[in-house]
Amino acid sequence: MAKNLELSYLIDFYGDVLTDKQRDVMDQYYNADLSLAEIAENFGITRQGVRDSIKRGEAILLDLEDKVGFARRHRELQDKSAQLQALAKDIEFRNNAGYARSDAIAKDVEQMLALLETLDD
Amino acid sequence: MAKNLELSYLIDFYGDVLTDKQRDVMDQYYNADLSLAEIAENFGITRQGVRDSIKRGEAILLDLEDKVGFARRHRELQDKSAQLQALAKDIEFRNNAGYARSDAIAKDVEQMLALLETLDD
Repeated sequence: MAKNLELSYLIDFYGDVLTDKQRDVMDQYYNADLSLAEIAENFGITRQGVRDSIKRGEAILLDLEDKVGFARRHRELQDKSAQLQALAKDIEFRNNAGYARSDAIAKDVEQMLALLETLDD
Repeated sequence: MAKNLELSYLIDFYGDVLTDKQRDVMDQYYNADLSLAEIAENFGITRQGVRDSIKRGEAILLDLEDKVGFARRHRELQDKSAQLQALAKDIEFRNNAGYARSDAIAKDVEQMLALLETLDD
C-alpha cells in the first residue's frame, strides 16, 4: 500500500471527525511514518487490523474532502496569499525608491484588488 | 423551534455530507424559509418527520463545524480580506495623489504583510 501524501494533509483538516484511535493510527502511519507492524504493536492489534483501520479512515477523509473541498480551497488560498505578498513587497520596493504616481504601483494595487475579490471563493 | 441563521451558513459549507433528502429539507427550512407544514406537504411526510429530519441534519452540521471549523475560518478570512482591500485602496489613493517615499504607504504595506502572514491560519 503506497502512502498518499494528500492524506497527511487531510488528517490536519478533518482528523477530528475520526475516532481517537483511528486518528492516532492514521497519524502514526502518515505523519510519523511508522510501518504497519510498528503500529500493530503500539495498539496491540494485528497488521490486518491496522490496514483496515487506515483504509476506513482514508475513505472517510477522502469522501469529506470530496464533499467539502476545504483542503483544495486552502491550497488555493495559500497560492493567492503568496501572490499578494509578492505584490505588497513590490509596492514596498517602488515606494521606497520614490516613484510617485507610479503606474507600476497602480498596477500592483489593481492586481491585489482582483485577487482579493476571489479570496473567499 | 427558532431558526438558527448559523445553520443556513453551515448548509452552504457542509450540505453535501447530508443525504439529498435531508439537504433538501434543510434547504427549504433554512434558505427558502418554508414552514414545517409546507415542507411536510412537499415531501409527503408528517410535520414530526420534517422536524426530526431537521434536528438530525442540524446535529450533523454543527458537529462537523465543531470538528472542522471551516465556517469560522471562512468568516475570519472575509474579515481579513476586507481589511486588505481597504489597505490596497488607501495605497491606490496615496499613490495617485503622488506621495513618493510615503510613510503612509510603507505602513499600509507593513499591515498588509502582517495580515497575509495569518491569512491561511
